[in-house]
Amino acid sequence: MARVHNFSAGPAAMPLAVLEKARAEMLDLADSGMSVMELSHRSREFQAIIDGAESGIRRLLGVSDNYAVLFLQGGASLQFAMIPMNLRRPGKSADYVDTGSWASKAIKEAKLTGAAKVLWSGKGDNYTKIPKAEELKISPDAEYLHICSNETIGGIRWMQFPETKVPLIADMSSEIFSRPVDVNKFGLIYAGAQKNLGPSGLAVVIIRKDLVERTAGSVPVFMRYSTHVNSGSLYNTPNTWAVYMVKLVCEWVESNGGVAAFEKKSGEKAALLYDLIDGSEFWRSPVEKESRSVMNVVWRLSKEELEEEFVKQAKEAGFIGLKGHRSVGGIRASIYNAVTLESVEALAAFMKDFEQKNG
Amino acid sequence: MARVHNFSAGPAAMPLAVLEKARAEMLDLADSGMSVMELSHRSREFQAIIDGAESGIRRLLGVSDNYAVLFLQGGASLQFAMIPMNLRRPGKSADYVDTGSWASKAIKEAKLTGAAKVLWSGKGDNYTKIPKAEELKISPDAEYLHICSNETIGGIRWMQFPETKVPLIADMSSEIFSRPVDVNKFGLIYAGAQKNLGPSGLAVVIIRKDLVERTAGSVPVFMRYSTHVNSGSLYNTPNTWAVYMVKLVCEWVESNGGVAAFEKKSGEKAALLYDLIDGSEFWRSPVEKESRSVMNVVWRLSKEELEEEFVKQAKEAGFIGLKGHRSVGGIRASIYNAVTLESVEALAAFMKDFEQKNG
Repeated sequence: MARVHNFSAGPAAMPLAVLEKARAEMLDLADSGMSVMELSHRSREFQAIIDGAESGIRRLLGVSDNYAVLFLQGGASLQFAMIPMNLRRPGKSADYVDTGSWASKAIKEAKLTGAAKVLWSGKGDNYTKIPKAEELKISPDAEYLHICSNETIGGIRWMQFPETKVPLIADMSSEIFSRPVDVNKFGLIYAGAQKNLGPSGLAVVIIRKDLVERTAGSVPVFMRYSTHVNSGSLYNTPNTWAVYMVKLVCEWVESNGGVAAFEKKSGEKAALLYDLIDGSEFWRSPVEKESRSVMNVVWRLSKEELEEEFVKQAKEAGFIGLKGHRSVGGIRASIYNAVTLESVEALAAFMKDFEQKNG
Repeated sequence: MARVHNFSAGPAAMPLAVLEKARAEMLDLADSGMSVMELSHRSREFQAIIDGAESGIRRLLGVSDNYAVLFLQGGASLQFAMIPMNLRRPGKSADYVDTGSWASKAIKEAKLTGAAKVLWSGKGDNYTKIPKAEELKISPDAEYLHICSNETIGGIRWMQFPETKVPLIADMSSEIFSRPVDVNKFGLIYAGAQKNLGPSGLAVVIIRKDLVERTAGSVPVFMRYSTHVNSGSLYNTPNTWAVYMVKLVCEWVESNGGVAAFEKKSGEKAALLYDLIDGSEFWRSPVEKESRSVMNVVWRLSKEELEEEFVKQAKEAGFIGLKGHRSVGGIRASIYNAVTLESVEALAAFMKDFEQKNG
């Protein structure tokens, strides 16, 4: 068995140690005589798992008791709908920043059920940069400001978060655990798990508790944050397997130095690729330097007709998931926490070799 | 490692062969060099998995091309909300039958967003029976009739399904794959996976394609059936692990004779317990005979004060999940497809022994 170098955008590479532990416990979790998938979500054993996942997230991000940590189904996509349904009261509006495909989806859902104002859009520039602070005129009476902190497709991220008086809401799906964050500056943070947290089928939501009170009575029970806060994410059966995997990932992040260590490592991995891209006319970065993501590195070949060949040869050499998103083309390497420095070094070596042969 | 006898109501016992296969493929699915959790949901490899899960369900239940088969997140609980949001047009009403805790939850969600008529309720009888055909006066202009075909908590099931002109909708979470069903008699069938299909975090929805057109434009994109029908359940990242497990479970059901074989086996397993309960004054079934579930067998001890001791001693002897739901008390053995005849025989032997010592 040869494991590949996995640069997929999500679902994505997972830590080998986590997969090995899940494999070892598959038939018998902690002497229970059951797989974690066979445990009742009301059992003591599963309560310990979900408590462990929650406390791991709280420790790693420094989440205070003013916030609830939820494990919900439906990924970030359901959050696009739940956020305005819960936090934008009838007759009020919310502010959004359109930095790419994911921010756009959130905006689309918000407009379906009420008023949403787009403060800034990068669409005209093909989503290659994040706005400067002075470009955002936040509405003083907005119910919240929504941003996507890292755009997986465009390969851009907010280096600094906007200062707001209204609650700041961030989709951190593709960068959570890649840098320390001052949670207290946010009203709500959410993340689909399938990039830096675990497998797909789960979203982690960190919500300031006072915001839970805003929800109108006409919102379906399942879609109310209060339902899940009041039940400790056990209103209905959660994705128990994914909660277990998130717990294992939290333990792996902690045992490897925590979020600060991964910030450093992410910077090193990203620099390897960006330096290479910037250092030769053979490659080209479409992204504004100050907006570059350290999780999703996107680039082009100057000879764009070679891109297909690059992806093909890379795949044959064991580098998976390098094709850029179908909406933008080009190349993309997603280098989430579980992607090792060795994998990135191997990719860089492959790129140099490809350049030499085709430059 | 000793595997226990798992009688949990869900999440529940899974087939050992399925768990072993998942374990064997954990680090390397089909020579991909990746775990199934690491595969992009847009990859050829994952498309083969979701196609395999869909075709398995189609073969096992005889689902025609008039129906779409969807893999959604949010479990049955999200379906409680999605069904009226999609299939009950503005100003119209839908019919519901209240047979227990799960039917009640569906009714509660339906009433939040529009009109719902409860045709019959078993609440006054503590949910111990299913209505007779002549007790249901279906509204001719109802958008649909909703039933829960097997109530996990009460331990009752619809032996025969009502004949309707309006679309019949059934929550089959706790009995799908336990008996052949004429899908053509239904407008929509749904099931949370965590009982007879796989792990939690997934709902399978089988929907007649013409019904998809009913949805109003104001429904959030993520909550529309059309969104998921038109994208083959890949509008957003599905619960890829659970889809994979459902595929493995389908293969296991097929290789063990299909749904008809499990109907026979379920009848045998249930008869072992019901015969024992009916055969002695020591035990007592609260459920009307014609309404008895073959998936969730509930019973009482005549000396109710012994029930706690029974559950305790059973647990010590390796029988897990026998405590009745906290809302009704008593004893419950969930004997889904993955619970072996040997486990049920062992439970019956334990019960006889307990009776002898305490009778």
